[in-house]
Amino acid sequence: MKKLAKEAKTASKKLMSLDHTTRKKILLEMAENLLKRKQDIVKANELDLAFAEESNLNASMKDRLKLNESRIEEMVQGVRSIAEQEEVVGIFHKEFTDKAGLQIKRQRIPLGVILMIFESRPNVVVDCAALAIKSSNAIILKGGKEAKNSNEILGEIIQESISKYIPKESVQVLASDNRKVIDELLELAEFIDVVIPRGGEKLIHHVHEHAKMPVIAHFQGLCHMYLDKDANMEKAIKLVLNAKTQRTGVCNAIETLLVHKELVGKIAKDLTKALHEKKTELRTDKTFMEHAGVELKLATDEDWATEYLDNILSIKTVDSLEDAINHIDTYGSHHTEVIVSENQAICEKFLSSVDASCVMVNASSRFNDGGQLGLGAELGISTTKLHAYGPMGAEQMTTTRFVIIGDGHIRG
Amino acid sequence: MKKLAKEAKTASKKLMSLDHTTRKKILLEMAENLLKRKQDIVKANELDLAFAEESNLNASMKDRLKLNESRIEEMVQGVRSIAEQEEVVGIFHKEFTDKAGLQIKRQRIPLGVILMIFESRPNVVVDCAALAIKSSNAIILKGGKEAKNSNEILGEIIQESISKYIPKESVQVLASDNRKVIDELLELAEFIDVVIPRGGEKLIHHVHEHAKMPVIAHFQGLCHMYLDKDANMEKAIKLVLNAKTQRTGVCNAIETLLVHKELVGKIAKDLTKALHEKKTELRTDKTFMEHAGVELKLATDEDWATEYLDNILSIKTVDSLEDAINHIDTYGSHHTEVIVSENQAICEKFLSSVDASCVMVNASSRFNDGGQLGLGAELGISTTKLHAYGPMGAEQMTTTRFVIIGDGHIRG
Repeated sequence: MKKLAKEAKTASKKLMSLDHTTRKKILLEMAENLLKRKQDIVKANELDLAFAEESNLNASMKDRLKLNESRIEEMVQGVRSIAEQEEVVGIFHKEFTDKAGLQIKRQRIPLGVILMIFESRPNVVVDCAALAIKSSNAIILKGGKEAKNSNEILGEIIQESISKYIPKESVQVLASDNRKVIDELLELAEFIDVVIPRGGEKLIHHVHEHAKMPVIAHFQGLCHMYLDKDANMEKAIKLVLNAKTQRTGVCNAIETLLVHKELVGKIAKDLTKALHEKKTELRTDKTFMEHAGVELKLATDEDWATEYLDNILSIKTVDSLEDAINHIDTYGSHHTEVIVSENQAICEKFLSSVDASCVMVNASSRFNDGGQLGLGAELGISTTKLHAYGPMGAEQMTTTRFVIIGDGHIRG
Repeated sequence: MKKLAKEAKTASKKLMSLDHTTRKKILLEMAENLLKRKQDIVKANELDLAFAEESNLNASMKDRLKLNESRIEEMVQGVRSIAEQEEVVGIFHKEFTDKAGLQIKRQRIPLGVILMIFESRPNVVVDCAALAIKSSNAIILKGGKEAKNSNEILGEIIQESISKYIPKESVQVLASDNRKVIDELLELAEFIDVVIPRGGEKLIHHVHEHAKMPVIAHFQGLCHMYLDKDANMEKAIKLVLNAKTQRTGVCNAIETLLVHKELVGKIAKDLTKALHEKKTELRTDKTFMEHAGVELKLATDEDWATEYLDNILSIKTVDSLEDAINHIDTYGSHHTEVIVSENQAICEKFLSSVDASCVMVNASSRFNDGGQLGLGAELGISTTKLHAYGPMGAEQMTTTRFVIIGDGHIRG
């Protein structure tokens, strides 16, 4: 692993002086080659799917694993759109010349070598490799064993595409499932500038515990929607349905709905009916259940602390805005928090009191996504406050330095 | 410690909705009160100085510890200038409205609770408290025992000043020298968002090893100046003298000078003479010594790796720009790196190949300082690439989040 990480560091130094035109050319060639080898990718992916079948992985896992032609085309489209995006490195900003004529400016530069540790979805390999090239970073991609064959072939195609222009070690895909590999990599702060674990609690904690370099965690989304007493009922129901059921199993779906006690009587019946039509399992407090007028599962304290990643919603009645904010404070994961209300003062109070990477008024939590928010593509959604909070695109894979140009200037 | 950190977290939540006018008022009152109690501060500081005398601290340590009237006035001036600076939190940027009418914007927000661990200089208490209030963060300041009495009285005056407007736990000064206190605080990731250790290698490593929250290290400055073959001799000598001797014992002074082999014959004599006039001790390679024409101390490999923080300079002859870059790569601490050359292509190559928070052409390394670079005041100089690289001012104590305003918008 040390050799591999060292090669990534050496590659990253070559990438520092890579120009925008070349980076764009590399990305477009990479897109072209992925398309050309579509059949090979599908074949490799079928091996992983067969293994998933044998191992009895659940349907949602298998769905995340799958790469068919249309998904490959989507992936390729993603690479092309990253290629067309504005330049993110090299650019100068906040330039000024001081009284003595010293030129002071800041420049956006790559981080260096990024280690990404992720689970299941093989498209992560392509998205993250493209974002790394865009931002002139070298990247080491460590996927899970369930996607071994898919990750391997994607890594191979990427390395073939880039090696004409930059060292192939700029993108390295580790497809083996040796946990020891991760622990070895986490020691190599000398060569790796940042590690980004994207996955469940166990993985994130393991990385935090062992990494010798900085960590940007992409942790769970335990997201809430709060229906205020001044919520518009029609919008509220539409928003709950979209935020919970448009796609389950994603981090920006809501897990808990908080309902103001003055609204619960008016909305519980219709809401329950609408969610039941979408086959959503409800786990609620007594107050909500009474107003819903049907038998529902009673929520436990564990429910408030659970990211279901499934078509399940917990519902709690709250006495006040403060009560809602306190609940979010206790159980939220700093991911996405939404208020539904027509009362602007209440909305502002919510926005200024809730601590999350993305806060929303009268919109579905499903919008917290790099693509939707104008970043083009995303590496994932950071729940770490430092450096990047929320969706991470190519720009969030950079840092800034000062560049100072003098003509023999000394400090007096 | 847990109680203290929890109180800081609670205070930080109140600070989230604090407006600019109130923050400014608090800072100006703090400045006023520090000025009023000048005599008390001097008296407390005299106790620390007497203890330093007894403990035989060296002159440079004692100098860093000292607070006389003029230094207090400088400190107060610093607080006032922070108060007058532009607003750094709450501000929106990169606003746009998508096709469906969804408003998407980013907002600069405080980090929350900052733990700062520092050594000797008591003015750090005032600077960092002022920057924390400016950026709506709560801060816990853990100083060294050598400044115990000074830190205590400064903390007391600050808390008195702020408590009319915000919880006094927004700024907490820990003056005791219990190492256990640090270890206890480093466990409290639940309440503390980031730890900033500012000091020597031992402290930084200890914090990296034990902190459960993200670390922004303010590590040593092993800074280089490279005199290229196309350097202007007069500028070069002036720059070396300023970068090494204008103030020794600071992180942005140079420690090693690299001289191109085609320049060394022309410059060694004059440079040695000029440095000897400033009483700088030189440790050089054989080539330089031969051209200097006087007996000098021979540098060892250890010299290349040493931050002297003293009036000592190591000098090495290099074969080429690449050679200089490799040396910096091996021994540099990513702090400040300078090239002296009239050849623009060479300068650009240097800038695009050297990895440091501040890179300079024909200017003294002493300019790498928040005040000089337009940040107003600084918390210190970060050598961590993530989040803030280089001088950290109030803006670097913030992060950004997404704020999304819809009118019942759902994702299709």
